Order: sequence, then structure tokens, then C-alpha cells
Amino acid sequence: MRDVCVVGLGLIGGSVLRAAARAGRKVWGAAEAPEDVAAATADGFDVHTDVGAALRRAAEQDAIVVLAVPLTAIDAVLGAVAEHAPRCVLTDVTSVKRPVSERVGRLVPNAAFVGGHPMTGSTRSGWAAGDAALFDGAAWVICAEDGDLTPWAEIARLALDAGAHVVPTSAAEHDAAVARISHLPHILSAVLASVGAQGGPLAMALAAGSFTDGTRVAGGRPELTTAMTEGNREALLPAIDEALGMLGAARGALASTGSLRATIMSGHRGATELAQSRTRERAEVRIDLAGPEAAHALRTLGAQGGRVTALDGTVATAAV
Amino acid sequence: MRDVCVVGLGLIGGSVLRAAARAGRKVWGAAEAPEDVAAATADGFDVHTDVGAALRRAAEQDAIVVLAVPLTAIDAVLGAVAEHAPRCVLTDVTSVKRPVSERVGRLVPNAAFVGGHPMTGSTRSGWAAGDAALFDGAAWVICAEDGDLTPWAEIARLALDAGAHVVPTSAAEHDAAVARISHLPHILSAVLASVGAQGGPLAMALAAGSFTDGTRVAGGRPELTTAMTEGNREALLPAIDEALGMLGAARGALASTGSLRATIMSGHRGATELAQSRTRERAEVRIDLAGPEAAHALRTLGAQGGRVTALDGTVATAAV
Repeated sequence: MRDVCVVGLGLIGGSVLRAAARAGRKVWGAAEAPEDVAAATADGFDVHTDVGAALRRAAEQDAIVVLAVPLTAIDAVLGAVAEHAPRCVLTDVTSVKRPVSERVGRLVPNAAFVGGHPMTGSTRSGWAAGDAALFDGAAWVICAEDGDLTPWAEIARLALDAGAHVVPTSAAEHDAAVARISHLPHILSAVLASVGAQGGPLAMALAAGSFTDGTRVAGGRPELTTAMTEGNREALLPAIDEALGMLGAARGALASTGSLRATIMSGHRGATELAQSRTRERAEVRIDLAGPEAAHALRTLGAQGGRVTALDGTVATAAV
Repeated sequence: MRDVCVVGLGLIGGSVLRAAARAGRKVWGAAEAPEDVAAATADGFDVHTDVGAALRRAAEQDAIVVLAVPLTAIDAVLGAVAEHAPRCVLTDVTSVKRPVSERVGRLVPNAAFVGGHPMTGSTRSGWAAGDAALFDGAAWVICAEDGDLTPWAEIARLALDAGAHVVPTSAAEHDAAVARISHLPHILSAVLASVGAQGGPLAMALAAGSFTDGTRVAGGRPELTTAMTEGNREALLPAIDEALGMLGAARGALASTGSLRATIMSGHRGATELAQSRTRERAEVRIDLAGPEAAHALRTLGAQGGRVTALDGTVATAAV
């Protein structure tokens, strides 16, 4: 088991550090935010504000480097990786994969980079909000591109160690999917919160479950939501267009025929598909990561809603 | 305390029956759905499938009649009220108030009608989903129109007995507010569930908190959601238009400048206003329901986000 060096000690980075330590790995970390470093130190972790020193140690120990900083800070941290650990096994946890992959290719071309994204979060942030159990039972995307899957297996093992199951896919397919199920929800939540509040104190006094649920993520930190959604611009635009088209069609049907049936039935089918995807029976399959077309097999698994649940040598056990 | 006759024994009607009984009132009910009647009978309640008989008993006992049927069934039940209890003290619990008020005025002009709407619900339905505690701490709108407030006080007392606080407003203001904070959330939830599910099994596998929260109400019974939203067409159209305008502006800004800041900041302000409306300090005021302009004072209280918390004779204690 490789050691783990985490750069960035907020909610996600702090949780990765804790979860890797819980799994018995040697871990250290660094962050520019002195309050996160102070809090992590107080909790007994080996963390510092000197990112360069943490990365040099990672290079010496052949550790996995996990970048857990916001997308807006990725370029600066990649510059430090290029300087101090240019050939490390590298992953990230940011919410878009194509823009990060492109930057890594440009700034740290010799790193063994595998993009990652744990699908979990919180409206809270910072070290104190982190939890070793944050990833238990969660999906963790690990991008499987063609080529040697050895680094992929390293990162997948870290995610499995952290209690997650691994969803393999491509960077582009990831970005298109999260535009629909993570970034669009944040935009619609903001629209709903804003239109609701325009109704004044009476509307706020009457707001119950549907409004509270629908606006929860609008209460999160605006700078994080802005960076996340803007960073996935290319994939988010067509998702917003689909939503605009459907909302416009609902508006037109309500105005002309008085019916919202098509909209509501379509939404009900979507909600049913989500519920079924969480409860359906799954078959177990095995994928040999050293075999031919293994990356393609992994991506196909992900496209079918499957997940890797264990790794034994080069053999991945998956549920599909 | 007047007796209470509830027509319709689903989630809301069943809960009103239980809550009124919990408060020590004599209650009986009727419903056309034999499964709800059988379940309520098994729970020891005095309920029947003969709606006419229940209404005649209400007329004899001068009981409050609570209509707890969907909007689509209101006309038929109002016909029965006109036949069996045309002068009763009458309220309803449906999610739109202007359309119901208009129908009552046409079909049961001599009833002492006061429109009501408890702001609570569930994605479950039927007698079994009901709960005597469903209204505890919830807002219950009781429309306060000009004129004698004696029937208003009767219905407000029932809502207070059921554990709710009473929000007084006009039918039109109610309908405009719920279009924003209840009906628009259902439409946006349907749009989100549909666009998300279009992403296929991968998108469903990656869906986490923001998608789950944002699509929860899309999983409710389509026929109830359809009846509720279509029934508030007049007020819902401008709310959808506001959402379309804001979503279109977000789309345009993302495409042209790459920025979603205005949208996300506006949503964050809305979420903050909701949170503040729930935690702010409130001042206590008193309104004499027998005084001049009392209905206007009640509606002003509601427009300010205030609520009636107790009734003593004709004096309402309110928090604003």
C-alpha cells in the first residue's frame, strides 16, 4: 500500500487524509490555509503549510499525491507538483475531469495522472467538516483512459480503502453526467431560491418540504458552487438547454391546454429510474486489468451503471 | 369546541381527523375510498362511505365540515354539501384557494366558508400515511377575507388545536405565494429528474445529495402533483416565467462571459432569507377579531411573515 500525500485539507482533502489513515496507510498533507493545518495538527495529523516539502517527500517515498484544492487553485498546485514531484502517481478530487486532465497534460506531462471524483459533499466546508467515513458507500469516479491501468488500480485501491465503490468512466462522460446530476441541480436550486424569496415574507413563511429540499444546495458557499459549475461550462450548457426546453414546454402546455401531465409524468419516470438504480439486483463480474481492452471494459461497466467493489492484484470485482 | 366532520380520509384528511380527536373534539368522517374507510375503522374511528349521512349529521350537530379531497373531486363534494349541509361552517385543505372559493360561492353560497391550507405533506398518501402530529409546528393558511370573522376564528381554532400556527392571508396572495414555494418546486423537480435520467445509468450511478434532494417531490404521485399545479395555473404561469427568465439569463451569462456568479449569488441570498425567516426574533402582537379592520390587520400580519399562535375569545395572539 502506497503512502498518501494530500494537498488541500478542506472537507474532501481532510476526509481523504482521515480515511486513508483509517485504512492503515501512512499519510501526510499540506495546505495553504493555516486554519485547516492548525486544526489537522491538533487532531494529530502530520500536516504542514509547506506544500513543496510535502510533495518532495511524496517523490522520495513514491507516494500517491491527491490534489484536493478547488479548480481555481489547480494550476498553482500543479506548478508545485511539476517542480517537486513531476513523476508521481497523481489524482485529484475536483468536480470536473476534462479541464483538469488537460491542465495536467500541459503542466505535469510526466506524472502518472488518473482523474478522480468522489460523489459526496456537504454544505459545510473546511477541515472540521471532514470525516473518515465521508466516502463510506459513496460512488468515487476514477477515470479509465486507454493505456497502462497500473496507476488506475493504485487510485481505485485508495478509493476502495476509503469505503467507496469505484465508478470507471472517461473524463468526457463524467463531465456530461455530473452536469446533469450535480451542476444543473445547483443552478435550478439557485433559480428556485431566488424566485421563491421574491415572494417576500409570506412566501418564506409558507415554504415547506418541497422548497426546503429544492433550495438546500443554494445555501452552500457561493464561491465553491460558482467555481464548480463554471468549470464545467462545456458540458453544463447543453444540460441547461435541455432544462430550458423542458421548462418552456411546460409553460407552453400550461398556458395553452392547461396540462402539466407530460412534464410531471416525465419527472416521475426520472425519479423512478433513480430509485430503481439504487435498489436493483446486480450481477458480479470480473475484469482483468492486465487483459486486452481492459480500459474499454471498465468504461462500459461505468456506462451501464456498474461499479468496481474490490481489487485483488490485477483482477477487479465489479457489480453491474 | 365544535365537532368536526372530515370528508376525505387520505394523508391530510386522515391527519385532520386524528389531530382533532387528539385535541378532544368529537370527530367523524366519510370517504368514497373503501380502503381508507376500512383502515380508519380498524383504527377505531367513526367513519363511513356514506358522505351524505356524514354531512347530514354535521348539519344537525352544527359541526365544522372539512373538505379533504383533491381539487378534482371538489365540485362533486360541494354538490353533496349543498344538498345535506348547505349552511355549515366549511373549510378545505386543498392547495389552491381562489379556484375553491369561486366554486364554493357558486355551489354552496350559504355556507360559512373559510379556505384553509396546511403547509405540510408527504410523498406518501392514504389513511395509513396520516398522523395526528402531522401539523405540529407547521404553517396552516386560513384565508381572512373582509366581513364577520367568527367562522375564521372557528377554523383557526381547529388548526391551532391540531398543533399548527395560523397564517392569515387572502386567497389571491396565498395562491401567488404557493406558486413560488410549492408548485414551482414540483415543476423544477420534474424537469431535473427528467434531464438527469436522460444521462442514463452512469448519471444515475453518480447522483448524490443535490440530485436526490432536488428530485424528491418528482417521486410523488403524478396525479396529485398534476391536479395541484394545474389547479393554480393563473398564479403558476408568472412564477414559471420568472424561473425561465432567470435560467435563460444564467445560460446566456455562462455562454458569453463564462460567469454564473449573478445566478448563484441571487440563489444564496434567497436561501439566506429562508433561513433567517425561520430563526429571526419575533414580536408578540394582539389582534381583536371583533375590532374594525380586523381582517385587514390579519392579512397584513400574514404579508409580514407573521402568524397567529393562540386564540382567546375574539383576541388573537400573534408573532410577527
